Amino acid sequence: MSLTDMTDEKLTELAEKVRAEYDDLKAKNLNLNLTRGKPSAEQLDFADELLALPGRGEYTAADGSDVRNYGNLKGIPDIRAIWADLLGLPVELIYAEDSSSLNIMFDLVSWSWTFGNNDSERPWSAEENVKWICPVPGYDRHFTITEHFGIEMIPVPLNEDGPDMDAVRELARDPEVKGMWLVPVFANPSGVTVSEDVARQLAEMPTGAPDFRIVWDNAYAVHTLTDEFPENHNVIRFAEEAGNPNRFWFMASTSKITHAGAGVAFFASSPENLAWYASHAAVRGIGPNKVNQLAHARYFGDAEGVREIMLKHAGSLAPKFKAVLDILKDRLGEYEVASWTEPTGGYFISLDVMDGTAARVVELARNAGIALTGAGSSFPLHQDPNDRNIRLAPSLPPVDELEEAMNGVATCVLLAALEKLDK
Amino acid sequence: MSLTDMTDEKLTELAEKVRAEYDDLKAKNLNLNLTRGKPSAEQLDFADELLALPGRGEYTAADGSDVRNYGNLKGIPDIRAIWADLLGLPVELIYAEDSSSLNIMFDLVSWSWTFGNNDSERPWSAEENVKWICPVPGYDRHFTITEHFGIEMIPVPLNEDGPDMDAVRELARDPEVKGMWLVPVFANPSGVTVSEDVARQLAEMPTGAPDFRIVWDNAYAVHTLTDEFPENHNVIRFAEEAGNPNRFWFMASTSKITHAGAGVAFFASSPENLAWYASHAAVRGIGPNKVNQLAHARYFGDAEGVREIMLKHAGSLAPKFKAVLDILKDRLGEYEVASWTEPTGGYFISLDVMDGTAARVVELARNAGIALTGAGSSFPLHQDPNDRNIRLAPSLPPVDELEEAMNGVATCVLLAALEKLDK
Repeated sequence: MSLTDMTDEKLTELAEKVRAEYDDLKAKNLNLNLTRGKPSAEQLDFADELLALPGRGEYTAADGSDVRNYGNLKGIPDIRAIWADLLGLPVELIYAEDSSSLNIMFDLVSWSWTFGNNDSERPWSAEENVKWICPVPGYDRHFTITEHFGIEMIPVPLNEDGPDMDAVRELARDPEVKGMWLVPVFANPSGVTVSEDVARQLAEMPTGAPDFRIVWDNAYAVHTLTDEFPENHNVIRFAEEAGNPNRFWFMASTSKITHAGAGVAFFASSPENLAWYASHAAVRGIGPNKVNQLAHARYFGDAEGVREIMLKHAGSLAPKFKAVLDILKDRLGEYEVASWTEPTGGYFISLDVMDGTAARVVELARNAGIALTGAGSSFPLHQDPNDRNIRLAPSLPPVDELEEAMNGVATCVLLAALEKLDK
Repeated sequence: MSLTDMTDEKLTELAEKVRAEYDDLKAKNLNLNLTRGKPSAEQLDFADELLALPGRGEYTAADGSDVRNYGNLKGIPDIRAIWADLLGLPVELIYAEDSSSLNIMFDLVSWSWTFGNNDSERPWSAEENVKWICPVPGYDRHFTITEHFGIEMIPVPLNEDGPDMDAVRELARDPEVKGMWLVPVFANPSGVTVSEDVARQLAEMPTGAPDFRIVWDNAYAVHTLTDEFPENHNVIRFAEEAGNPNRFWFMASTSKITHAGAGVAFFASSPENLAWYASHAAVRGIGPNKVNQLAHARYFGDAEGVREIMLKHAGSLAPKFKAVLDILKDRLGEYEVASWTEPTGGYFISLDVMDGTAARVVELARNAGIALTGAGSSFPLHQDPNDRNIRLAPSLPPVDELEEAMNGVATCVLLAALEKLDK
């Protein structure tokens, strides 16, 4: 029965039961962590052979160059070609760089801030005010970058097919709005995938700022939890067709495919955007780690090789997601006290608890030895206006620990709701 | 006989001979390159086993952490300990980061520019004017960074024991002077090593700007051409003792030890400077490529392992340096038309030709198929006030090609000098 339909007596009875459950939970002295979207040891083992690649005597890229020496800011063609194929992009529009796409995103904002980008009238730092569109819930590290530069973040709702386009279109007319974060496929944390229609609207919409950019952070481009892969739209072409060729800064990486933080990051964009990026990146450094790029290219073989590996990841992750969803349904479903996403890919489940209780749920869980991502993390400045959203990251713990943690979380969600109802 | 002592007749005779040599040189249709300090294929082969490291099943750092997963902005203790030992620094003051120290130097300047550093009263971008001390001849990529940010570069002479300290002390009093580039050991391109006395003076001198920094780019810390290693001074301690604890940003890297651009870069500094760096680096990314750090740590073993590898490099490089120096002496010595450094380490020979002829020498060489680093490259804005200096990079070509190229260069140096004397 829904909590809202319960009599006062029934609520009191339930509260007693849930408090007892919470006391039992605390007595277990757990030490469980659901905070970050880290791959598990089982997943990292999939790429074990990569630890011995490219292998002795193996140092020649497809273009005949020696990957052990300086040079080639764009990255080697071997790995660029695989990702171009995977993402449906022309290989000449994709650069392969070091480690994490977060680094590239930071640099793009930083260099736009200091120098202006290739469509800027002046550096962003010279503008009176710079604003940024932030679909919510969203990726906390995106918001941390814009916060770091003092950029004013404006939340817009993320719907089932992408950001609320009426809101986005309206905001984008403001010349102070310089950009927008977006995880277009299996979004962090909601799992939402942007539809082709919304992607085209984003490419086509007029903007007040000539140097407006959408950071198309395609971090989960191939990270399915089923046996089907999502469609990856060539938004760079959409934008070119719409007469806004420089609209998208397109990111991808191998971080949750091979070894997290030790892989290859990709930056795809229009020729003009790439040239602007290179004009600063070539001052910052000489080129990426091409030995690691060759190792990755040899490990994958081709785009199909990447997809095969992703099905292994799905085999490891899908039971964990199912375990979380089953417990949420079993423990919370009848009370209608929470709602959650049921993603078919990505790394997260977005849990909405009773309004005004998310911070309390996280606190209760912490006091019981279960670390959850801080309430509000998926919102700019950690400010969830409804104190409602919690990001669950099921990937890292083994299934039995995950079940233990989620049963504890369910108890905390219920207890916080009952407290809110003064029980 | 010195050119200046020659009769007009002798000069004319010599000019005829040298012109004939230059015509012969052009007829060879050479295609030789002495532009950059790249390691040769022979040197890169020394690290062949690194291409298969850390090896399957090998992913645990000395602190028990799994290098395949996210985290640890400081880098793994295994590789930090080896470099701390090698450089005589406490391990807690050294971070291991990705790829190239150039990246870190750029970020340090960029973040000081945008945010100010930990001793800044305001961001450098908010200053009326920012100036930088540039010992010359120096490293072109350093100067490119400061040029990129519009920082005014002030050259000071680099003497046998380091930068001219009278000039440096005087400039450092100016509050607009925010920093200084320096390669302290086997400097690029002169091979000069900063003495302990000069290092201490740099640590001790008063500065007008509280946020003044010396970029101590120790790129060639162990890059000997003999069987002796240079002393590496702990300037961080010198600075602390002098009451200027945050004076140095200290860099090192494996770039010319293992594989260029695919290695590990090190940033050492005071605890406050490191904390400031981390406050920005942690927004830019999650952590460095720790798999590559473990591979390097396993490859080296310890500091002695690094020194053993460097002796192999010396064995490969020393004959090339000798070949260059022998040809310069044989072909140019008697005419007293040029002078050059005779470095005991590093990657470069600095050649000073007759004043006003360096650009012409590079042009003559290029027309004969020999690519030299552009004249003036070792000076801010590529402006060598005497048009005198040429940086020679002997490492990349095999000895026979190097000899052919250097014989050609010697012809060009003589011809340009004779042209200058209107012959």
